[in-house]
Amino acid sequence: MKVSRRSHVPPFAVMQVLATANERRAAGHDVLNLCAGEPSTGASDVVREKAAELLRTADLGYTESLGVPALRREIAGHYRRWYDVDVDPARIAVTTGSSGGFLLAFLAAFDVGDRVALARPGYPAYKNILAALGCEVVELDCGPDTRYQPTVSQLMEAYYAGGLDGLVVASPANPTGTMLPPAELAALARWCEEHDVRLISDEIYHGIAYSTDVQQATAAMYADSGAVVVNSFSKYWAMTGWRLGWLVLPDELVGPVDALAGNVALSPPALAQHAGVAAFSPAGYAAAAENVARYATSRAALLDRVDELGWRPVAPADGAFYLYGNVAGFRDAVGGDSVTYCRRLLAEADVAITPGADFDTVGGGDWVRLSFAAAPEVVSRAVDRIVAWHRTL
Amino acid sequence: MKVSRRSHVPPFAVMQVLATANERRAAGHDVLNLCAGEPSTGASDVVREKAAELLRTADLGYTESLGVPALRREIAGHYRRWYDVDVDPARIAVTTGSSGGFLLAFLAAFDVGDRVALARPGYPAYKNILAALGCEVVELDCGPDTRYQPTVSQLMEAYYAGGLDGLVVASPANPTGTMLPPAELAALARWCEEHDVRLISDEIYHGIAYSTDVQQATAAMYADSGAVVVNSFSKYWAMTGWRLGWLVLPDELVGPVDALAGNVALSPPALAQHAGVAAFSPAGYAAAAENVARYATSRAALLDRVDELGWRPVAPADGAFYLYGNVAGFRDAVGGDSVTYCRRLLAEADVAITPGADFDTVGGGDWVRLSFAAAPEVVSRAVDRIVAWHRTL
Repeated sequence: MKVSRRSHVPPFAVMQVLATANERRAAGHDVLNLCAGEPSTGASDVVREKAAELLRTADLGYTESLGVPALRREIAGHYRRWYDVDVDPARIAVTTGSSGGFLLAFLAAFDVGDRVALARPGYPAYKNILAALGCEVVELDCGPDTRYQPTVSQLMEAYYAGGLDGLVVASPANPTGTMLPPAELAALARWCEEHDVRLISDEIYHGIAYSTDVQQATAAMYADSGAVVVNSFSKYWAMTGWRLGWLVLPDELVGPVDALAGNVALSPPALAQHAGVAAFSPAGYAAAAENVARYATSRAALLDRVDELGWRPVAPADGAFYLYGNVAGFRDAVGGDSVTYCRRLLAEADVAITPGADFDTVGGGDWVRLSFAAAPEVVSRAVDRIVAWHRTL
Repeated sequence: MKVSRRSHVPPFAVMQVLATANERRAAGHDVLNLCAGEPSTGASDVVREKAAELLRTADLGYTESLGVPALRREIAGHYRRWYDVDVDPARIAVTTGSSGGFLLAFLAAFDVGDRVALARPGYPAYKNILAALGCEVVELDCGPDTRYQPTVSQLMEAYYAGGLDGLVVASPANPTGTMLPPAELAALARWCEEHDVRLISDEIYHGIAYSTDVQQATAAMYADSGAVVVNSFSKYWAMTGWRLGWLVLPDELVGPVDALAGNVALSPPALAQHAGVAAFSPAGYAAAAENVARYATSRAALLDRVDELGWRPVAPADGAFYLYGNVAGFRDAVGGDSVTYCRRLLAEADVAITPGADFDTVGGGDWVRLSFAAAPEVVSRAVDRIVAWHRTL
């Protein structure tokens, strides 16, 4: 029987890497997995203890579609604490992870046939969700000159070429880890407002930042101009499997997102919402900061050895927990592109990293992504192995 | 800035009822709420204890997009136990509630512009999700002659009128509680297979059935012919806020749903999945059966008093926990349709029930839905109040 055209989502190259990594691990190999886009720790004790208490006392039924009021208030408080920005809790929508947030934001903002721009390289789910919803994706080719981030001049070009309805930006970005300087974010937001283009700002890696060059800015400052912020408890608070995220919405999207959420999702997970309140306690922030300090240790060690690693260039790892590096120089040595590089690295040195093809269908064959969310000693051993493996080529 | 056309979801009439009920309760009134589509108990102790243990021991990171293998195996076992049907666990997709299941099933099966039929009256989210995804909804006018369920002859008519790509059925149904006799389900499945129409069978109320007239049949028997089953832990296992459900998929949709889920949802909530395994333990089933016995007590008391209630006709409440009744006879007495009936019932007798308009935009003005998922004494007191209120009209 017919399968929909929109379900023909391109497979991720990393799935083959992960399957092989699991096979090798099952066969007794000591595989170092640096593919994962998730923290190696889980939720903090304070969140877990709150959840355990709720399991004894709460009914855990459906909640309001936009989330429980106590959590929406805490999230608003987070904007005051971190960014000195006033956000009315009424403009916060709690979502089922940032995935649920993207789905609702895209549905509320874009119709079938709308054109939405985003950076290449970038997180592939943006493209795939937009395509599944019938939107047209406009890829902006982003390189080292702009920290792999889109620019106003690229938007102008796309706008005059075929019209534009939306722009998705991510800072810190996946896979590059690069951040949008605040002045650039402001310029993009202003341009979007002037051209009636909906800005969707992925800020799920906020709080995981290391750069002294680039400060962290939130598009919640530009909600009056129509910008939507997508955020998550998965990365900074290491709560991936809890499926909890949020949107900061401009006024005109609050009603539509509420109505859509009531039909598409009913409500985000109740236990995660009630326990998620504890993420904003001093202990919750402290546990998250400890994780970030660990990523910083791994990152510093990794960047110290980047010459030895021989990936040239690497994207400036301003934030998140990724190093995106160019391995084009190894094409002859490995006999292929970065998919071959990753396949052989796993087969010959038991280190799993992600081929760039998943993030960039044009230039990704030259790139790989290494996640340093794993424990520092794992990252350090992985670099040892990669360097030693290079010598065997 | 532009809001999408597809986000103009019709508001639910029950939202006004609920808001007023909450105001009256806050003002000190003893409001009886029979609006809710959810069990008044929560998850069983065995599931809660398993979850509490996992909070101490598990990392609760992302899981496989299609769900953890242990839960998929348990769900397959459930089909053997309950229906004597062999389902390969590879064809089970764990989802974020049945909401997440509908979204994935609709995306995988239907493209923009596809025509999908469903019964009127029916659960409004089907229509609203389909419309948001760009599908065309074909409503089938279903009445008492067919237990408010669609028939093959209606499908033929819709098919020859404008083509048909899908059919959504629900048994037991919301709002009517009626069930599709097994022979009818078989006939619909056969017709769908022969006409290349994708059958989606909502079975979220399975296990909550009282009728001796109609047996419970699952479309999982017809997966070879392309049928998709949607089910949930929310109703039978009373785990609404946990956001856990599943699909039984025909082979050709397993890959597409996996790929879509990886982009649209990443994974269902991890804690709910791991703890959900315990729902299939003897203690898990026993707790659910206790809830069903309580609904049966409420239902029997309610049906005993249906003449006294004066709703004529009522749909045969074969399953679920709803009584769908016709209040057209009260139009003159209340001075309006069922929205007015519900508004006045709440204002004058502090009983909250749901106007039929939410389930049927054509004939819903004559109908109301009463949920008997509340405690039996609450249901009994509500009937007392409705009967007494009728006398005042």
